[in-house]
Amino acid sequence: MDFGHSPRTQLLIEQVAAFIRDEIEPIEADYHRAVAAADDPWQPLPILGELRAKAKAAKLWNLFLPDDKLGAGLSNVDYAPIAELTGRSFIAPYVFNCNAPDTGNMEVLVKYGDQAQRDRWLHPLLEGEIRSAFCMTEPDVASSDATNMAATVTLDGDDVVVNGRKWWSTGVGHPDCKILIVMGVSDATADKHSRHTMVLVPRETSGVVVERLLPAMGRHDEPFGHGEVTFTDVRVPAGNVIAGPGRAFEIAQGRLGPGRVHHCMRLIGLAERSLELACERATSREAFGRRIADLGGNRERIADARIAIDQARLLVLHAAWLLDTQGIASAYGAVSQIKVAVPLMAQQVVDMAIQLHGGGGLSEDFPLAAAWTSARSLRLADGPDEVHRGVIARLELAPYLEDRS
Amino acid sequence: MDFGHSPRTQLLIEQVAAFIRDEIEPIEADYHRAVAAADDPWQPLPILGELRAKAKAAKLWNLFLPDDKLGAGLSNVDYAPIAELTGRSFIAPYVFNCNAPDTGNMEVLVKYGDQAQRDRWLHPLLEGEIRSAFCMTEPDVASSDATNMAATVTLDGDDVVVNGRKWWSTGVGHPDCKILIVMGVSDATADKHSRHTMVLVPRETSGVVVERLLPAMGRHDEPFGHGEVTFTDVRVPAGNVIAGPGRAFEIAQGRLGPGRVHHCMRLIGLAERSLELACERATSREAFGRRIADLGGNRERIADARIAIDQARLLVLHAAWLLDTQGIASAYGAVSQIKVAVPLMAQQVVDMAIQLHGGGGLSEDFPLAAAWTSARSLRLADGPDEVHRGVIARLELAPYLEDRS
Amino acid sequence: MDFGHSPRTQLLIEQVAAFIRDEIEPIEADYHRAVAAADDPWQPLPILGELRAKAKAAKLWNLFLPDDKLGAGLSNVDYAPIAELTGRSFIAPYVFNCNAPDTGNMEVLVKYGDQAQRDRWLHPLLEGEIRSAFCMTEPDVASSDATNMAATVTLDGDDVVVNGRKWWSTGVGHPDCKILIVMGVSDATADKHSRHTMVLVPRETSGVVVERLLPAMGRHDEPFGHGEVTFTDVRVPAGNVIAGPGRAFEIAQGRLGPGRVHHCMRLIGLAERSLELACERATSREAFGRRIADLGGNRERIADARIAIDQARLLVLHAAWLLDTQGIASAYGAVSQIKVAVPLMAQQVVDMAIQLHGGGGLSEDFPLAAAWTSARSLRLADGPDEVHRGVIARLELAPYLEDRS
Amino acid sequence: MDFGHSPRTQLLIEQVAAFIRDEIEPIEADYHRAVAAADDPWQPLPILGELRAKAKAAKLWNLFLPDDKLGAGLSNVDYAPIAELTGRSFIAPYVFNCNAPDTGNMEVLVKYGDQAQRDRWLHPLLEGEIRSAFCMTEPDVASSDATNMAATVTLDGDDVVVNGRKWWSTGVGHPDCKILIVMGVSDATADKHSRHTMVLVPRETSGVVVERLLPAMGRHDEPFGHGEVTFTDVRVPAGNVIAGPGRAFEIAQGRLGPGRVHHCMRLIGLAERSLELACERATSREAFGRRIADLGGNRERIADARIAIDQARLLVLHAAWLLDTQGIASAYGAVSQIKVAVPLMAQQVVDMAIQLHGGGGLSEDFPLAAAWTSARSLRLADGPDEVHRGVIARLELAPYLEDRS
Repeated sequence: MDFGHSPRTQLLIEQVAAFIRDEIEPIEADYHRAVAAADDPWQPLPILGELRAKAKAAKLWNLFLPDDKLGAGLSNVDYAPIAELTGRSFIAPYVFNCNAPDTGNMEVLVKYGDQAQRDRWLHPLLEGEIRSAFCMTEPDVASSDATNMAATVTLDGDDVVVNGRKWWSTGVGHPDCKILIVMGVSDATADKHSRHTMVLVPRETSGVVVERLLPAMGRHDEPFGHGEVTFTDVRVPAGNVIAGPGRAFEIAQGRLGPGRVHHCMRLIGLAERSLELACERATSREAFGRRIADLGGNRERIADARIAIDQARLLVLHAAWLLDTQGIASAYGAVSQIKVAVPLMAQQVVDMAIQLHGGGGLSEDFPLAAAWTSARSLRLADGPDEVHRGVIARLELAPYLEDRS
Repeated sequence: MDFGHSPRTQLLIEQVAAFIRDEIEPIEADYHRAVAAADDPWQPLPILGELRAKAKAAKLWNLFLPDDKLGAGLSNVDYAPIAELTGRSFIAPYVFNCNAPDTGNMEVLVKYGDQAQRDRWLHPLLEGEIRSAFCMTEPDVASSDATNMAATVTLDGDDVVVNGRKWWSTGVGHPDCKILIVMGVSDATADKHSRHTMVLVPRETSGVVVERLLPAMGRHDEPFGHGEVTFTDVRVPAGNVIAGPGRAFEIAQGRLGPGRVHHCMRLIGLAERSLELACERATSREAFGRRIADLGGNRERIADARIAIDQARLLVLHAAWLLDTQGIASAYGAVSQIKVAVPLMAQQVVDMAIQLHGGGGLSEDFPLAAAWTSARSLRLADGPDEVHRGVIARLELAPYLEDRS
Repeated sequence: MDFGHSPRTQLLIEQVAAFIRDEIEPIEADYHRAVAAADDPWQPLPILGELRAKAKAAKLWNLFLPDDKLGAGLSNVDYAPIAELTGRSFIAPYVFNCNAPDTGNMEVLVKYGDQAQRDRWLHPLLEGEIRSAFCMTEPDVASSDATNMAATVTLDGDDVVVNGRKWWSTGVGHPDCKILIVMGVSDATADKHSRHTMVLVPRETSGVVVERLLPAMGRHDEPFGHGEVTFTDVRVPAGNVIAGPGRAFEIAQGRLGPGRVHHCMRLIGLAERSLELACERATSREAFGRRIADLGGNRERIADARIAIDQARLLVLHAAWLLDTQGIASAYGAVSQIKVAVPLMAQQVVDMAIQLHGGGGLSEDFPLAAAWTSARSLRLADGPDEVHRGVIARLELAPYLEDRS
Repeated sequence: MDFGHSPRTQLLIEQVAAFIRDEIEPIEADYHRAVAAADDPWQPLPILGELRAKAKAAKLWNLFLPDDKLGAGLSNVDYAPIAELTGRSFIAPYVFNCNAPDTGNMEVLVKYGDQAQRDRWLHPLLEGEIRSAFCMTEPDVASSDATNMAATVTLDGDDVVVNGRKWWSTGVGHPDCKILIVMGVSDATADKHSRHTMVLVPRETSGVVVERLLPAMGRHDEPFGHGEVTFTDVRVPAGNVIAGPGRAFEIAQGRLGPGRVHHCMRLIGLAERSLELACERATSREAFGRRIADLGGNRERIADARIAIDQARLLVLHAAWLLDTQGIASAYGAVSQIKVAVPLMAQQVVDMAIQLHGGGGLSEDFPLAAAWTSARSLRLADGPDEVHRGVIARLELAPYLEDRS
């Protein structure tokens, strides 16, 4: 048992940390103020492009991708601490070309895309020339149960026809978003896990309409955004189907393991950043003749946050190690565990940090209000806590039920 | 011991409930969409004025004010269930001229204002012709400790000169906001509770600058808003001082008891509304072949919310009864108790309701995201939870410490 | 709305408080030490009888019984604060002849017993000459679902034959325990609520065996105890059936409302006592140069305990008032609410008090270890929390489900 | 980063697991019943000795001791999973000669004892011929602050004289307990960390009186027990001082790191065992027509328990790895973290398991009531949670406070 990082990981951690400290943090507050003040916040500010160019030049680019030719060849457990660092900033993941949902979409194309799909979509995504979205969740049904899905992906000769309404399609507001991966029912009579198909739909295809951009807890997260998108008789070539009809579940499963590790590690970075802000505030302000840190239960809260973060990080690293060493099937429960534990932990740590900041914690003068929204959303995105608890319980109870059957 | 309402209260409850159901709820979703889509959301929409006129005509107006000539003559315990009803809607308090901070400001003028102050400011506030703000909290210090306050109110002959920076001055963004009550240090050498003075500062006085309008958790709450306001050599007549120099603490204390009861009862209404939405959602959507209500721990969550709301309501009613029957001094601990218990309860109930709504809960399609912000803010406004816990503990421990001294 | 006590209740509160302070508290620690050291702790110590005689002489006797001839004629809401006071001591309820399960059994006989049953059993119970037990829960099934009950009460001519195994029959270890009320299935084919019958079984009847006395969390609560009791072809006259065959559910329901109010109020008294001990300890010991009260989050814990207790008390009083004014059917949800909220609150307050006492809190030098067991047990006795949450949720969701049907 | 066990650890895990499954579990329930029924439960039952002989013969003996001549040569991280296994049973630690406080006392003698002390006390402890106790905590002061300690260890020529009162001296009730390590003030004027001395006091020395055996939450844990011990002018040779006068703090620190890892891993084993029992019960009983597992929030509770246990285990393993690789000074915060997190987690998991067992969970028919007491006690033993939170917060805030000084 060894909790140390490999030398290569350690070096990358230092490089990424230095980049964030030297290049991103100094401009971050100004960047967010500029977005807030922009006439059109959906137009990405030039500084983002500049930072991305620097990151790419420094080879701190696509580090998420385990493929050692197309990406950095890092395992999940090696990439995890880097993901944590990027989570300290709302723009760092994008700067390093490591932001959701592009990461997951690139992984899908690496694993399941054919050569034509890779040439057309994967290459420009890896280069950062275009962005993508993932259209799965629907507004009119409880999407936590995928069998509720109503959108259809119908094969019609050489074409595929997509119909349906999706929402929370993250990133669809970005002007560079050129390709959507859409999941829909292709054969309602098939086995539950062979019923759905994933298809690549270019953003500009006729019949694709971004009906509105949805704020999450009041935030649009410009210039990325979360879209509600309708597909009305949208017709694309059958060659746009990924991996073949009926394979969407398999693809989704493979996509979700690493994706959840990334999400969770970023939240841990966010929680660390929030705890740092809390400590900074608690030691720099006074009330009733004492530092805020020394009032009431504040020190205990800080201790509890430290424990909660450290526990959560270890749980994610362990899940990543299981993914690396035993594959997604064996890591299934572990991945559900982190999905339950980490967003809730992050929400609570951020809430504590907000409280220690007083009114400032509610304002945009600190990244805490946005951090809270980020953590809260992840308790629903990729499946609500409760569904994951159901998975964990099913695995836990299975041997006892088998004994009885 | 009698938990029933008086006949008059019961009648008013029915009238207010009917008004909300018939006049406010039908337009509420459209209203919020219209504000979100407005070119200038800081211009109040005409519908608000129309509703206010109806409420006034129906004599459902200024019900908060215990004075039986100027207001409705209701005790705190009588008004409480009405405040609860208004809390179910974000606009109802304003419609009934019962919204903070105008309520508190009117009470201050009723209790402490002289005739000239009443004529000039109280009357138009009671009529709903103008709005007001209350400027107490400051950005540069931990304002939970009032002795940290840095703003100054300096008597200079027949004038008073105000200098300082305040924030979270709620309502200052509204175009009808014409008068600010500002609290500042007037005599730094005086006894801790005689050091501060409150003064009426017309919004348009030279030197008063609303530097910015602060979003709370990303929300501006237009057209009311929360302002950061600077006062630079702001000069007003000495006659604008309320109740005399050095009396700000006394005034603040008297203001806060009923104000906290109102806030808490409104939050209980908000929690009830959120629980209703949760029940509605839980019984109308299905996943995994069952109603959402019947999945996992959802029924237990709904039960816990019911218990939490009912406990909280009783605690507030009891505090209101103490205020009515024994006065603010005897109700001091009880008021701190509700200030700790109720916002936290409301935050948790709303969080549960959000979770049951899935992605919809994060959107603006339901009032839950705004409800969450409202509850969360109240854990800081009027003193953070931790300060109130300190008050409660001090009262609880006092007899034991006396025994030892 | 009036939270004040009636003059008579106020007077009784003062008398009971004085009796506990002057007669019970001074001997309590010695009493428990004497029981622990006794050769046979199941033999009641004489002091108990002496105190009971004094209480009876002072007319502080059977105060629980609402019947104004047989008891004190107090409503539930009037008796509640008295029950709270008795809960501060583990022996006070018995001293005042107000301890479970005798209270509930006496109520059953008052409401449902016929003249012969009253003469033979109720009178000596009211006089305190005998004790009783209530045999409902069974070891071999999940008794939270009464339809699981396996014991049978079979009418056989002029007799009734009882067979089955019960446990947690509280009080059965006391040498004065002379009568058991036993519930069993009498007609398995009847409607779910008419299937069971209650019958009076004298303790000494042939076939009644107390198999063992069960410790709860390691405690036997001598000389009362909790028994596991088997009934093997136990034959009693048919006249021992209470209210007639098939009426056990109805009787149980009527018994449980006030019984739960009593239990909960006693727990509130126990929580108050625990908080007092916590405050006493927190102000009398020092560590790291400060009073324990002033370390870390201890003051906040004390404040949270105060809030939790006060909320819980109001919830119980309100449930009692509903019972009094609207009957058990309307108070059903409220009674389930207190059953969930109060034992959990008490468990948490006691846990906090234990923690503030350090090692002493785990010992028998303070009543806290026993208090914890008492609170914890009540989360299971009279139905586990989860079953009551199910009742509350069912009531909460009913209107929404009706709308859809 | 590698979460796998070494081959040797893996082998030992399997051997210990097999021994527990084959030798201990089959006799465990009977053993506890026999103790409960014994005339003198303080006389160890012969089965214990037999099992110890088997374990010793199987070389599953003293596995805790890192010294590779005297013990098994396992690092903390290697021994941790074995400690977890032993924690599943209340007698397994003793069977493997790995129970507190003997483990810590043996480690002290290995690290700090001189040859004579080792010959006389360490050898028979390692052989399991005698037992020991550790006398540190005192009843009359808040012992969480060691500077409160009142007992004295006074050098007087060739002797040392011990005076004072200690309690919670675990193991002192066992007839084989022959040696006590006692800590007391030897030089009240010395630096805070050089004020105390540890001395070996044979149990039978004149002036040593076990005043009473203390139950923890009503349990005596016979035949080990927790003693309150007075030392009145107890005189032992100066050669019994461990490592020299004034070094008690240093010794205590070195003792506590591994000791806390052991305690915490055993609690994790206990929590695992409790979760297994909960799953067993939840799948084998039915109520309301469904398995208990399928009622209300029970599956979510089981999932939360799984997450909580796995997080806690990783935190302890990481702390053990820090101890192994960086020493106690660097692992100080990590050890405090596990001391806060693990007992609280175990208490909650056991509480959940109790609740799922209904009345059975409170009885001695399951090991849950005893498990609860074990977990609860560890929230106080070795320093209360709050003190450890204080340590964690101090470390967390230190860099911010340095920045400001």
